[in-house]
Amino acid sequence: MSASDLPLVRAARRQPTPYTPVWLMRQAGRYMAEYREMRRRYSFLELCKNPPAAAEVTLQPVDRLGVDGAILFADILLIVEPLGVGLEFAKGEGPVIAKPVRGEADLGRLAPIDVDSALGFVFETVRIVTRALDGRLPLIGFAGAPFTVASYVVEGGPSRDFVHTKRLMYQQPEAWHRLMGVLASATGRYLSGQIRAGASLVQLFDSWVGALSPADYRAFVLPHTRAVIESLSPRVPVIHFGTGNPALLPHMREAGGDVIGLDWRVDLDVGWQAVGADVGVQGNLDPSVLLTSPAYIRQRAKDVLERAGGRPGHIFNLGHGVFQQTPVEHVKALVDMVHEMSAR
Amino acid sequence: MSASDLPLVRAARRQPTPYTPVWLMRQAGRYMAEYREMRRRYSFLELCKNPPAAAEVTLQPVDRLGVDGAILFADILLIVEPLGVGLEFAKGEGPVIAKPVRGEADLGRLAPIDVDSALGFVFETVRIVTRALDGRLPLIGFAGAPFTVASYVVEGGPSRDFVHTKRLMYQQPEAWHRLMGVLASATGRYLSGQIRAGASLVQLFDSWVGALSPADYRAFVLPHTRAVIESLSPRVPVIHFGTGNPALLPHMREAGGDVIGLDWRVDLDVGWQAVGADVGVQGNLDPSVLLTSPAYIRQRAKDVLERAGGRPGHIFNLGHGVFQQTPVEHVKALVDMVHEMSAR
Repeated sequence: MSASDLPLVRAARRQPTPYTPVWLMRQAGRYMAEYREMRRRYSFLELCKNPPAAAEVTLQPVDRLGVDGAILFADILLIVEPLGVGLEFAKGEGPVIAKPVRGEADLGRLAPIDVDSALGFVFETVRIVTRALDGRLPLIGFAGAPFTVASYVVEGGPSRDFVHTKRLMYQQPEAWHRLMGVLASATGRYLSGQIRAGASLVQLFDSWVGALSPADYRAFVLPHTRAVIESLSPRVPVIHFGTGNPALLPHMREAGGDVIGLDWRVDLDVGWQAVGADVGVQGNLDPSVLLTSPAYIRQRAKDVLERAGGRPGHIFNLGHGVFQQTPVEHVKALVDMVHEMSAR
Repeated sequence: MSASDLPLVRAARRQPTPYTPVWLMRQAGRYMAEYREMRRRYSFLELCKNPPAAAEVTLQPVDRLGVDGAILFADILLIVEPLGVGLEFAKGEGPVIAKPVRGEADLGRLAPIDVDSALGFVFETVRIVTRALDGRLPLIGFAGAPFTVASYVVEGGPSRDFVHTKRLMYQQPEAWHRLMGVLASATGRYLSGQIRAGASLVQLFDSWVGALSPADYRAFVLPHTRAVIESLSPRVPVIHFGTGNPALLPHMREAGGDVIGLDWRVDLDVGWQAVGADVGVQGNLDPSVLLTSPAYIRQRAKDVLERAGGRPGHIFNLGHGVFQQTPVEHVKALVDMVHEMSAR
């Protein structure tokens, strides 16, 4: 079967499918015993940089869950390591960037990002996974969108209020746009490399963009995200995902993407209306629903499917990643229910 | 001058005012040297419970900044202390609730909230402040909305994902509604007590409600927030404020309030359209703008005022509280600029 006949790829192009395809953000992760076992042997960065091991983690949930696609195991911050900002993953604390970029002077010391040499291991993982999937299922490549990646580079780690990021945007807009330009250009090359290596579609994660107002999004983010999406070659369907602010949806859609990823903060029918019927939508079950019971999960999954109304162009997913305390049998049950309840 | 002639109260009723009234969430707080000085003498809870000291803190920013109203100094969690859940304010860590409510059994052990005996110190603070203001300026009373307060009671402290809260809502809806009913009833009595003691208007803070979808808001929150607002006696204007999810705005408006408080995630004109022209709006400058420069603050404050278009019913405020690293002269400059640029 060619990739373009697979349900996930067809749905991303708004073509009819025999059922609603489903995959889950963070479907490869701590909630699975197999993953935790791998993490006993490798640190997070070691795992990302070891193509056979990263491929194994990518594939772990595929057969176990019966999802309609594999998502590359990697991290959105791998792309900033070549900049020389001192990226580390501290145990249990998430990413730390030792030398954050706070202005013009910091920008001057950034090394260029040579995607092929610095991120070749990711492309190798994509090749191994693609070979293993052998056309049965598509692989979803991914990258962080420029704003979300820049926010880590500027804050030095995760943030609640993004005050350094906003201060840079507001007070030194030229420096901000230069940083975003560097990241957008590298991200376009990085995703294109994943596509050439075998990814059938790609998702751009703008996970923290919801901290911005629509006016700020348009002024400081939209052109750079658009540049990433427009630069992709060869072209495959793009899922453009953000969380935290439904008011951004029409603007994110304007930046680009064949499918707009919705978090659970908006009801799916309203969200689809906000982005327009000429793009697909992905989402948007609240991941905390997976902590309840199969009966309740069914009720809530049914609600999401009903709001999508069986229209071509819906990819079922959560509104954000699987929580690590999620029972794996609930995740498996969700995938089965979506297939069963959406069968046409 | 009677309270109903004061610009802030008139604006809350959508009556014309000579300029756009302005106050700032957390205008009494750590960014002011006077406040930090008080905190060297009192712990946070001691300060809340000492009416003359709490009144002093309430009044500190009023003359210093030239704002159009004082906001009571208190905490949204004072109301849960009588429940016996073990509320403490750990140094630098925010509130901790030692015995969180996770189900039916925990509900059974909650003590009733006798507002007059348990929160009499707040009413005394209101009386002292009202006497000191002597009709020159209105005092804004406030309380946490039932969802936001419940989220602390269930999580045991601040939360990122609200998984315990959602699990309780989804899996034990009767227990959830019982907890919300207890909080809504106490909150109505608490706010009514503040009004009787002299507050000219009140704000209901639903700070964390943006973690919910509109459908969940309607099912699990709206009736309880509405019950609080409808129970207020005597009636004064109510500002109903939430953050984190512009998709909730029409639903929050349906729950009630004369003025809907907007965070910065929505452009003010779009937000006002979402809640309707028959209520006022409050907001919505991103508080990080106050960390930049007077010239940039002016540009952004002007944008907010232009989006409000000079229509009666706009109260200028930030989209959330003043950050503690904010220069006090920037806050003062903002207040002056709003008065000057909005003079009619």
